[in-house]
Amino acid sequence: MKKLINAPENVVREALEGIRAAHGTRVRVSLEPFYVVRGDAPRPGKVGIVSGGGSGHEPMHAGYVGRGMLDAACPGQIFTSPTPDQIFEASKAVSAGAGVLHVVKNYTGDVMNFVLAADMLRDEGIEAESVLVDDDVAVENSLYTAGRRGVGLTVLMEKLLGAAAEELVSLGDLKKLGESIRSSGRSMGIALTPCTAPQSGRPSFELADDEMELGIGIHGEPGRRRAPLATADEITAMLMEPVLRDLPFRSGDEVLLFVNGMGGTPLLELYIVYRKAAEIASQHGTKVVRSLVGPYITSLEMAGCSITLLKMNQELCRLWDAPVDTPSLRWGA
Amino acid sequence: MKKLINAPENVVREALEGIRAAHGTRVRVSLEPFYVVRGDAPRPGKVGIVSGGGSGHEPMHAGYVGRGMLDAACPGQIFTSPTPDQIFEASKAVSAGAGVLHVVKNYTGDVMNFVLAADMLRDEGIEAESVLVDDDVAVENSLYTAGRRGVGLTVLMEKLLGAAAEELVSLGDLKKLGESIRSSGRSMGIALTPCTAPQSGRPSFELADDEMELGIGIHGEPGRRRAPLATADEITAMLMEPVLRDLPFRSGDEVLLFVNGMGGTPLLELYIVYRKAAEIASQHGTKVVRSLVGPYITSLEMAGCSITLLKMNQELCRLWDAPVDTPSLRWGA
Repeated sequence: MKKLINAPENVVREALEGIRAAHGTRVRVSLEPFYVVRGDAPRPGKVGIVSGGGSGHEPMHAGYVGRGMLDAACPGQIFTSPTPDQIFEASKAVSAGAGVLHVVKNYTGDVMNFVLAADMLRDEGIEAESVLVDDDVAVENSLYTAGRRGVGLTVLMEKLLGAAAEELVSLGDLKKLGESIRSSGRSMGIALTPCTAPQSGRPSFELADDEMELGIGIHGEPGRRRAPLATADEITAMLMEPVLRDLPFRSGDEVLLFVNGMGGTPLLELYIVYRKAAEIASQHGTKVVRSLVGPYITSLEMAGCSITLLKMNQELCRLWDAPVDTPSLRWGA
Repeated sequence: MKKLINAPENVVREALEGIRAAHGTRVRVSLEPFYVVRGDAPRPGKVGIVSGGGSGHEPMHAGYVGRGMLDAACPGQIFTSPTPDQIFEASKAVSAGAGVLHVVKNYTGDVMNFVLAADMLRDEGIEAESVLVDDDVAVENSLYTAGRRGVGLTVLMEKLLGAAAEELVSLGDLKKLGESIRSSGRSMGIALTPCTAPQSGRPSFELADDEMELGIGIHGEPGRRRAPLATADEITAMLMEPVLRDLPFRSGDEVLLFVNGMGGTPLLELYIVYRKAAEIASQHGTKVVRSLVGPYITSLEMAGCSITLLKMNQELCRLWDAPVDTPSLRWGA
């Protein structure tokens, strides 16, 4: 295991100290328990958008805390759900009377702990709702999941809900918006290499030099099937076909196309995948109206990529274009 | 070699097609010869800021084309200088009467070809000047260099000159600004793993499981020395010490601290490095007034990082904060 770390047990804490050192004017970092909130939280009248999950997927979620996206992020240990206590404290820190909305990736531990935290919040008189993200079409159940896993759509969900929350949309309407996004987005990923969690020190799985894992999860958990290594164009087709068919996306649909890097794959290669994905989307009759290319939800240093398609409309395009000011996603005024 | 590519010889062209597909509303992509220019080029009265170099360092340079940064980027083949013809055509495409400024990383092939292109431009009556970047303190000469190599400072140079050019600063004054930035920034890098150029298919060097290469270049060329793998804190100190001593940075200096990922190292680890680098900078008496953390000048999938320090002043802070709107660096209005 070759990593820029000190001790495996200190990785998350020290990374949070680094986030505090680099972005302390923009976010506040708590180390006891771990959470990151926007520097100007709580915002009066605004629903707090809170997410979290195991670390190892950076920049998700702490990199997305700031104006126009998340109010708070709760990082667990590597590939480990955050505790109810963390989620409760982070939610309280950003609660300003309008309630909090939890964005929860569909993993058993995450779901359970967010439910417990929401109960604790309600006991304190804070309204708490949640939106589940379960966009991965690769497998119906998995090592860590009842139902589909939450992957790339999470990034888009957080951006879109964050933009709407900035406009002081109510908790109920944000939940409805989140459900509509949930039902409009699909993803699938592939790994060329495994990743190694610092605490285990061993690769999450073994792949031969001529093999890839199709439908991989973001924790190195098994995918849909192992397949012989193929070209970028062939791999892109293997990802796009199930994604397009699942929703299904139809001719005439306007879509956001998101090609995500799993951590160890160069941006150069992601653009090669994007090129083919855009071509396939176009052949299918969909119109790509927005795009995102880069490592936004990763699996440590895993080589590979995922593709997410989200059906867009005028309102979602407006929310997507709205200003965002976080450590890892920034644009607009 | 496990890569998301089709054929090694098509990597750069297909990646540029991907950039066109993803960002075609923001930049224009030429495939014959290869270059990327901002969508609204040429800008009347504005000096054209042009850079380029071998591919394999993405997002540099094509990812930095847009308002407030580069007017044009000329990507060569992987780790191969762009041709004079490419540079000439790209410069012409963004020339609007105020001249062009070439930002050139100090590699022998790059320097030569930018000089030839500048001569061709002058023959056509276009004023062309250049600023060299040679910030790498690791080695005085190298496989591809007379003098020091240009590395992380290039990203900062392009951002700062781009912001100044947006304010219609003259070619002469931009060159002076560039020289002052050149003399105020220093970098050093480290690799935990080599990278593999698609056309060779073999790792650029071999490292044992318990070794690292200190002072690595961005093409996998040898560094200062091979050393036993150390902790993140130890490695950070090994990079910061020569960087601080070289300029030298002095107590009281305000600095921008840039921790760059070489491509295969997770953001999580870069923040662990940033944390220690900020601590060392502070112990040295410098004040970190701006920061950048992420994979901004990479070496394909190499694991490792580099650290760049740039001495700042009020004017450089203002230029750093100025709006930028490129595929890979965006903020502000």
